[in-house]
Amino acid sequence: MKLSLEQLQEYNQSLFSSHQEEFGFLANQLSKEGNDVNGLVEKIKAFQIAVPSWALGAGGTRFGRFGIGGEPRDLEEKLEDIGLLKALTQKTDSVSLHIPWDIPSDYASIQSKAESLGISFDAMNSNTFQDYGQPHSYKLGSLGNAKKSVRDQAVAHNVEVIEIGKKLGSKGLTVWLADGSNFPGQASLRNSLHWTQESLSEIYQAMPEDWKLLVEYKPYEPNFYHTIIPDWGTSSLLCKSVGDRAKVLVDLGHHLPNTNIEQIVATLVYQDMLAGFHFNDSKYGDDDLTTGSIKPYQLFLIFCELISGSEDGAQAWESISWMIDASHNTKDPLEDLMQALEMISISFTKALLVNREKLTACQMEGDVVGAQECLQEAFQRDVRPLVKEARIQLGGAADPIGHYRKMDVRKKLIQERGAESRSTGL
Amino acid sequence: MKLSLEQLQEYNQSLFSSHQEEFGFLANQLSKEGNDVNGLVEKIKAFQIAVPSWALGAGGTRFGRFGIGGEPRDLEEKLEDIGLLKALTQKTDSVSLHIPWDIPSDYASIQSKAESLGISFDAMNSNTFQDYGQPHSYKLGSLGNAKKSVRDQAVAHNVEVIEIGKKLGSKGLTVWLADGSNFPGQASLRNSLHWTQESLSEIYQAMPEDWKLLVEYKPYEPNFYHTIIPDWGTSSLLCKSVGDRAKVLVDLGHHLPNTNIEQIVATLVYQDMLAGFHFNDSKYGDDDLTTGSIKPYQLFLIFCELISGSEDGAQAWESISWMIDASHNTKDPLEDLMQALEMISISFTKALLVNREKLTACQMEGDVVGAQECLQEAFQRDVRPLVKEARIQLGGAADPIGHYRKMDVRKKLIQERGAESRSTGL
Amino acid sequence: MKLSLEQLQEYNQSLFSSHQEEFGFLANQLSKEGNDVNGLVEKIKAFQIAVPSWALGAGGTRFGRFGIGGEPRDLEEKLEDIGLLKALTQKTDSVSLHIPWDIPSDYASIQSKAESLGISFDAMNSNTFQDYGQPHSYKLGSLGNAKKSVRDQAVAHNVEVIEIGKKLGSKGLTVWLADGSNFPGQASLRNSLHWTQESLSEIYQAMPEDWKLLVEYKPYEPNFYHTIIPDWGTSSLLCKSVGDRAKVLVDLGHHLPNTNIEQIVATLVYQDMLAGFHFNDSKYGDDDLTTGSIKPYQLFLIFCELISGSEDGAQAWESISWMIDASHNTKDPLEDLMQALEMISISFTKALLVNREKLTACQMEGDVVGAQECLQEAFQRDVRPLVKEARIQLGGAADPIGHYRKMDVRKKLIQERGAESRSTGL
Amino acid sequence: MKLSLEQLQEYNQSLFSSHQEEFGFLANQLSKEGNDVNGLVEKIKAFQIAVPSWALGAGGTRFGRFGIGGEPRDLEEKLEDIGLLKALTQKTDSVSLHIPWDIPSDYASIQSKAESLGISFDAMNSNTFQDYGQPHSYKLGSLGNAKKSVRDQAVAHNVEVIEIGKKLGSKGLTVWLADGSNFPGQASLRNSLHWTQESLSEIYQAMPEDWKLLVEYKPYEPNFYHTIIPDWGTSSLLCKSVGDRAKVLVDLGHHLPNTNIEQIVATLVYQDMLAGFHFNDSKYGDDDLTTGSIKPYQLFLIFCELISGSEDGAQAWESISWMIDASHNTKDPLEDLMQALEMISISFTKALLVNREKLTACQMEGDVVGAQECLQEAFQRDVRPLVKEARIQLGGAADPIGHYRKMDVRKKLIQERGAESRSTGL
Repeated sequence: MKLSLEQLQEYNQSLFSSHQEEFGFLANQLSKEGNDVNGLVEKIKAFQIAVPSWALGAGGTRFGRFGIGGEPRDLEEKLEDIGLLKALTQKTDSVSLHIPWDIPSDYASIQSKAESLGISFDAMNSNTFQDYGQPHSYKLGSLGNAKKSVRDQAVAHNVEVIEIGKKLGSKGLTVWLADGSNFPGQASLRNSLHWTQESLSEIYQAMPEDWKLLVEYKPYEPNFYHTIIPDWGTSSLLCKSVGDRAKVLVDLGHHLPNTNIEQIVATLVYQDMLAGFHFNDSKYGDDDLTTGSIKPYQLFLIFCELISGSEDGAQAWESISWMIDASHNTKDPLEDLMQALEMISISFTKALLVNREKLTACQMEGDVVGAQECLQEAFQRDVRPLVKEARIQLGGAADPIGHYRKMDVRKKLIQERGAESRSTGL
Repeated sequence: MKLSLEQLQEYNQSLFSSHQEEFGFLANQLSKEGNDVNGLVEKIKAFQIAVPSWALGAGGTRFGRFGIGGEPRDLEEKLEDIGLLKALTQKTDSVSLHIPWDIPSDYASIQSKAESLGISFDAMNSNTFQDYGQPHSYKLGSLGNAKKSVRDQAVAHNVEVIEIGKKLGSKGLTVWLADGSNFPGQASLRNSLHWTQESLSEIYQAMPEDWKLLVEYKPYEPNFYHTIIPDWGTSSLLCKSVGDRAKVLVDLGHHLPNTNIEQIVATLVYQDMLAGFHFNDSKYGDDDLTTGSIKPYQLFLIFCELISGSEDGAQAWESISWMIDASHNTKDPLEDLMQALEMISISFTKALLVNREKLTACQMEGDVVGAQECLQEAFQRDVRPLVKEARIQLGGAADPIGHYRKMDVRKKLIQERGAESRSTGL
Repeated sequence: MKLSLEQLQEYNQSLFSSHQEEFGFLANQLSKEGNDVNGLVEKIKAFQIAVPSWALGAGGTRFGRFGIGGEPRDLEEKLEDIGLLKALTQKTDSVSLHIPWDIPSDYASIQSKAESLGISFDAMNSNTFQDYGQPHSYKLGSLGNAKKSVRDQAVAHNVEVIEIGKKLGSKGLTVWLADGSNFPGQASLRNSLHWTQESLSEIYQAMPEDWKLLVEYKPYEPNFYHTIIPDWGTSSLLCKSVGDRAKVLVDLGHHLPNTNIEQIVATLVYQDMLAGFHFNDSKYGDDDLTTGSIKPYQLFLIFCELISGSEDGAQAWESISWMIDASHNTKDPLEDLMQALEMISISFTKALLVNREKLTACQMEGDVVGAQECLQEAFQRDVRPLVKEARIQLGGAADPIGHYRKMDVRKKLIQERGAESRSTGL
Repeated sequence: MKLSLEQLQEYNQSLFSSHQEEFGFLANQLSKEGNDVNGLVEKIKAFQIAVPSWALGAGGTRFGRFGIGGEPRDLEEKLEDIGLLKALTQKTDSVSLHIPWDIPSDYASIQSKAESLGISFDAMNSNTFQDYGQPHSYKLGSLGNAKKSVRDQAVAHNVEVIEIGKKLGSKGLTVWLADGSNFPGQASLRNSLHWTQESLSEIYQAMPEDWKLLVEYKPYEPNFYHTIIPDWGTSSLLCKSVGDRAKVLVDLGHHLPNTNIEQIVATLVYQDMLAGFHFNDSKYGDDDLTTGSIKPYQLFLIFCELISGSEDGAQAWESISWMIDASHNTKDPLEDLMQALEMISISFTKALLVNREKLTACQMEGDVVGAQECLQEAFQRDVRPLVKEARIQLGGAADPIGHYRKMDVRKKLIQERGAESRSTGL
C-alpha cells in the first residue's frame, strides 16, 4: 500500500495556516532569544531513526498476544510499512533486520525495493535466545553456554548474520544476549562471563573493518537470577576486551529500578563508548512502551547529554546509532511508531534549546536553582511547531497520525494482508 | 505412569539407617529444649499444598519456550503427574484447575481418576486474560473493560467456571485479573476500578454459600502502566465491598521491589482477610521461580506470621488455601515442584521451632538483639530430618528427587507421551 | 524583612510587554479551541498551597547538613518568610506548624502577625519520632510501641498539638508515624498495628468535630525493616476504623520503586478518602527534592486524577489539603519553594487543559493512541504565560525568583539573622 | 573495661559438654562425607574482619539519633571496645579509622595500646562529605567539585590521611565519595567524572607503593539525583585509569533495588579488581543493618563466589579487605557487631561446605535442579558448632553475647563513660 502524495499535500494544505501562525510566533520568539531558527530546523530534519523489522506487528507478553491485523507477512511488506512511516514522518530512513526472521530470499529484489523507498539497512540483529530448528538448543545459553558445541553454533550464527548484512550494506551487528541463569548455582558466574568474552571476540574477528559491534546489556528477563551482561559496566568490559569497534548499546528499558540512565549515557559518551540506542519507555522493567510516553523528562535529559557530549567533542553524533525498539501490545504498531518518532523529535528539539553557556555558568558557580531553571526553560517550551515545520519541509505529513487515520491505512492493510496476518517478532 | 511402591520402599530402606541417626540426634536435642517432637512431625504431615494444573509442563517467557518432553497432554495425565508427586512427597493432595484449559470431557471419569489417586479439587481458576475464540476480545480488559458487553462476557465465564467447579467438588474461585492499561490516559483509573467492583459482585453472587472468592493482586505485567488490582489494599477494598467470603490471595511474586511481604501477610491475617497463597520466588518481578530458591529467609518469616496469627486466633490455619504457582523454564517441572514442596516444608518447620514465648518477651522488653537471636536460633537449625521423617511416616520417598531420577521417570513419560507433548499453560 | 511593593511593580512593569504578547497569543489559541481563558486564570488564582514551617531552613541528611544562612530563628521569622513567599508568588497563604518546634510563646502576637501577612494555619504536625526531653523515649516507637506508657505519652502529645492548633484556628492534625522496626522479630507486626489503631482512635476522639485527621504512610526510613503504616492500604484501614474524618495523606516520596502514584490518588478519590498531599519529588526514596524537578509528567498525571475526580463528584476539591514537604540541602529554601510552587501551578494548569470529553471518548472506544495524544496535547503546551498572568493579577511578581535575587533577599536575611542562624527542622 | 579471662573460661566450661556433643556429631557427619574437619576449623579461625571506628557508637538517621550510653569518647576507648570484641569473638583483629574523627594526639601511645590489645590498623577513611571547619565547603562536592580550589583541598585532605595511616602501619586508603547532585542540570555529569578521575589520580600518586586504594561506589544518598561514582562500572573505570593498586570496594548496601550483588563480586574477582567489602544488610537502600539479618542467603552466595574465585586462582583471598560497616540505631553497637561477626562466620563456613566438584559437574551438564540441591545441601546445614569450635580454640567465648550480657558490660561502660557519651560517627 502506498500513500498518495497528492492527498497528503491536500491534507497538509488544510492545516497550513494555523501551523504558519504558530511556527511564526515561536520562530520570532526564539530568534529574539538569539537562536538560529533555520539551523534548528535543519538539525531536526537531519536526525533520522531506524525502525526494527520486528516492531511492525503486534507484540505480546508471556500471557498472550492480540493480533492487530494487516501485519506484514514478509520482508518486502515490512519495507513497505517503513516506507509508509517515512512518507508520513520523514523521521526514519532505515530498517534493522533480525535473523533468522528476515533472511532475504532474493537479495537483489529486496535491495531494489529498499532503494525505491529510500530505506537503507541499519545494524543487523542475531537471535540466539530461541530455538528454531538449529542442532543445539539455546535453552541454557548461547555465547556463554557451558558447552563448547553450543557456543560454536552461536558464534557461527552471528557470523552468518554478518554475511547477510554485508550483502545488504549494513555496517553493524547488534548482539543482545539472553544468556544467564534462573537459579543460584545453575551457572558459573565467572566461567559464563569468560566464555562470552571468547565468543564475542570470535564474532568481532569475523566483522568487516568498517563495521561496529553493538553490545547490549539487560539486567533480567528472560533469565531471572543472573544475566551474563546485566549492566553497562559488563558490556563495556567485554567491548574493551574485543576491540575498538565494539561499543555499548543502551536500551532504555534495560535497567534496574531508579537507574539514572542519562548518567550512563554521559559516562559512555565520556569514553567514546556509546554504540547507540534502543528507544522505548518503561515504568517497571523491559516494558517496551512507546518512548516518551511514561518518562518524557528523562528522554529530554538523555538528549541533553548526547548533544553536549557531541558539541564538546567527547563523542561524535554521527558515530551513534538510533533505533526504536518497542512492543505494541495494545496499539496499532504504525501509529505507535509515529508517536515514538514524534516524542523523540520533541525531546531532541527541546534539548537543542538548552542555553548551554548559561547552564555551564550555573554549574561552575554552584547556582543549583539557576541550573534547574535553565533546563525547565527549554523543557516547558512547546516545540511542536518546529518539529512540524521540519517534517513539512521534507515533504511529510503535517499531522502524520491524522492523515494515517483519514486514509484508513490499517483497514486497507487488513484488506491486503488479512486480519490474521502475523509478523515475525516477539 | 505409576511408581512401584516396592521399589520406593526398597530405596527408602537403603537410606534408612543414616536418616535414623540424624533424626534421632535432632529429636533428642529438640526434646531437651522442650519441644514435642511427635507433635511437630504430625503438623508437618498434616500440611498439604495444592499444585496447579498449568505447572506440570514447561513454562516460557515472551522470548520463547523450551519444551521438556513428556508433558501431560490432557487433564487425566495432569492428575497422574500430581499422583506421582503425591506418592513421592506426600506433600500435595489436590489440584487447582484452570478453565478453559481443563474443562473435563467426562466428569465421572475425572472424578474417579482423582479419587483413585487421592487427589481433590482445590480452587478453580478462570481466564479472562487471553482470547480463545470467545466473541469479545480481552485485549483491553475483562471485568473492568470499558465496554459492558465485554464485562458481561467475562462475568459469565467466571460463572461457568463456578459451575464446573461445583461438579468437581471445588470450594473456591481464584480471580486473577490482568486488566489494566499500558499508557497514561488509556483507561479511566476510577471507572475501571468501579466496573471491576460491579463485576466481582456479580460473580460473588453466583458463588455457592460454602465457596470463597480468592482475589489476587499484581502490580504489573501483562499491563505496564496500570493494573486495576495492583496491591493488597485494592484487593481488600474490592473484597470488602462484595462480601465476607471474598478474601485476598497473596502471590509471592506480585509485589513492587523491596516490599515487606510478611507484613502484608500479617496485616491480612490481622483482619482475617487472607484467602491463601501462590508460592514461588522472585528476584526482579513475577519471575515465578521455585519458592525458597532466592529468598529462603523471607519464606521463613512469612510462615512465622502465619503460625503466630493462627496460634493467636487472628485467622484460622484451616481457612487459608495453599498453592504453588511457578513457571519452569529450565527445570523438569516435576523436579521443580518437589524442590518447592521441600522448601515449603523446611520453612514451615523452622517457623514451628521459633520460641514464641521468648520472642514475645524480647518484643515487650525492647530486646532487639534477643529477638533476632530467637529467629536465627530456629532458622539456622537443620530441620531436614524432621521433614524427611514426616514424609517417610506417610509412605513417601526418603529422597523424592533421587528416587524420581533413579526410576527414570521423565524418560518414561517421554516414551509414553512423546518428546513434543505440550501441556496447556503459560 | 518585607518587600517593597513599589519595587515589585516596577520590576513587573519592565517585563510586562513581552508577557502581554505571550499571554495574548496563548489566550487567543486556547479560546479558539473552546477554552474559557478567564475561567482558567481564576482557577489558577484560587489554588493555594500551604508551606510547612520546617521547610524554611536548610535540610540535611544523616551524613551532614550545610546551613544556608539567614534562616528563621523563631516562629515569627518563619511567618515572615512565608509572607515573603506569598508576596512574590501569590500561591501560598498558610503555614503548617510542627510541634514541639513551633509552640507559640504568645498566641495573640503570633495570630496578629499571621493576620497582618494574610497567612492562616493549615494542618498541625505532631512529633513522636524524636526525643526532646519527654519522659519516655520514642526509640522503639510511639503510637505503636509495645509499652503502654509510651503509647499513652504519644497520644497525650498529639492531644496537646490539637489544643495548640485549636487556639490558632487550624482544622487538622497530620500524623506521620516513624514507628516500625529495623530487624525481623524486633516487633510483632500484628500487635504493633493493633496498638497503633487504638492510639489513633484515642487521638481521633480528642479532635474537634470540624477537624480532620490526616494519616500519612511511608514504606521505610527511619526504620528499615518494617514501618507500621507502610502503604495507603494500611493507612486506609486505620482511618476507616477510627472515623469518617480520618483520611489518607499522600506524600509523593513515600512509595516503593515504580509505584503508580496517580493510581493511588485515583483509588483514594474514588472512596472520598484522600486527606491531602505533601508535594516533593524523588528519584530513589524519600529524597524530598523540589516537586516536579525529577518527574514532571507524574505530577501532571496526578493533577489529571484530582481534577477529573473533583469534576465527576467523586471527591470535592475543597476537601483536599495541599502542602509542600521538601528538604533543601543544596538550594536556598525560599528559591526552592518558589520553584515548587511554580511547578505545581504549571502541572495543575496543564491538567486543566486536558480535553476530558475527548479523552473519555477514546477510553470508551479503546483508542489507546488517541488517549495518549489527548494527554500530550495538554502536557506539551507551554502554559507559563497563564500561570504568570494569574500571579500578576493577584499582585505577585512576574518573575518571583528574578525579583528575589534582584532584591538580594538572602543577603539581607543573613544580615538580619546571621550566617549561622538555624531553623528547626530535619 | 577489660574482660576477666577467668570468668570467660568459667562460663565457657558450663556450655562445654553440650557443645562437645553437637560438634562431635557434626564433625562425624562431615568427615563421613569426605570433609577435612580440622582444615575447616583452621580456615574459620584464620578469617578475621576489621571493625570501623565509627561503628562503636549509636548511629542515627536524618530524623534523629538515640544514644546508647557508654559510647567510646576517644580513639583509646574505641580501641578498648574492639579489644573487647576480639576477646569475646576472636573474629576481629583490626580497626579502620576515619579522619578527621580519629586523628591520634599521641601516635606512640595509640600504637602501644593497639599492640597490647592485638589490634592492627586496617584501611584509612577520609572524609570529604562534611564540613568541619576547613576553608572550602564540600556542600557541592569535593574530588569532583566544579571549583579547582575545593578539589585541591579534598586531595590534600586525602594525602594527609595517607600520612596519618603511614604512621600507624595502615596499608590502604578507602575513598567513599558523596559527590553528586540533587537536580538535573546542577552538575555536568561528564565534567564531574573527569575531575574526579584527576583528583583520584593525584591521591594515587601520593600513596606508598605497598598501599592500595579502595574506591567505593554508591548509587544515591546523600545526593539524590546523581552520584559521581554510582556503580561498580564507574568505580572500575576510575581505578583502571589511575593504577594497578586501585580496586573496587563493595558495600553491600550500595546498590539499586534487585541488584545481583554476588554477580558483581564474581565479575570483580574475575578481573582481580575486588578491593574488599563493607558488610551490612539492607532491605531498601543503604540501611546499614546487621549483615545477614535480612538476606542471609545472599551473604552465603557472595561467599561462594569469593571462595570459588580464590580456589580457581582468579583473585587471591589475601588480597581482599574485610570490614563491617553498619549503623546501630536500635541495638547496642557491640552486640550488633557480635551478631554481624557470627553471621559472617556462618555464611563463610556454609560456603566452604559446598561440594564444588559436584556443583561444577551440574553446571557443565546443565543439571539446574542438581546445582540448586548442591547449594541447599550446604546452606541448610547447621554449622554453628563449627564456628563455635573455632572460636573456643582461639580462646573466645562459647557464647559471646551471652557472656557480654552476663558480665553487664554495657552497664559498666556507662558507669565509666557516662550515659551521654557520644562517639564520633554518623
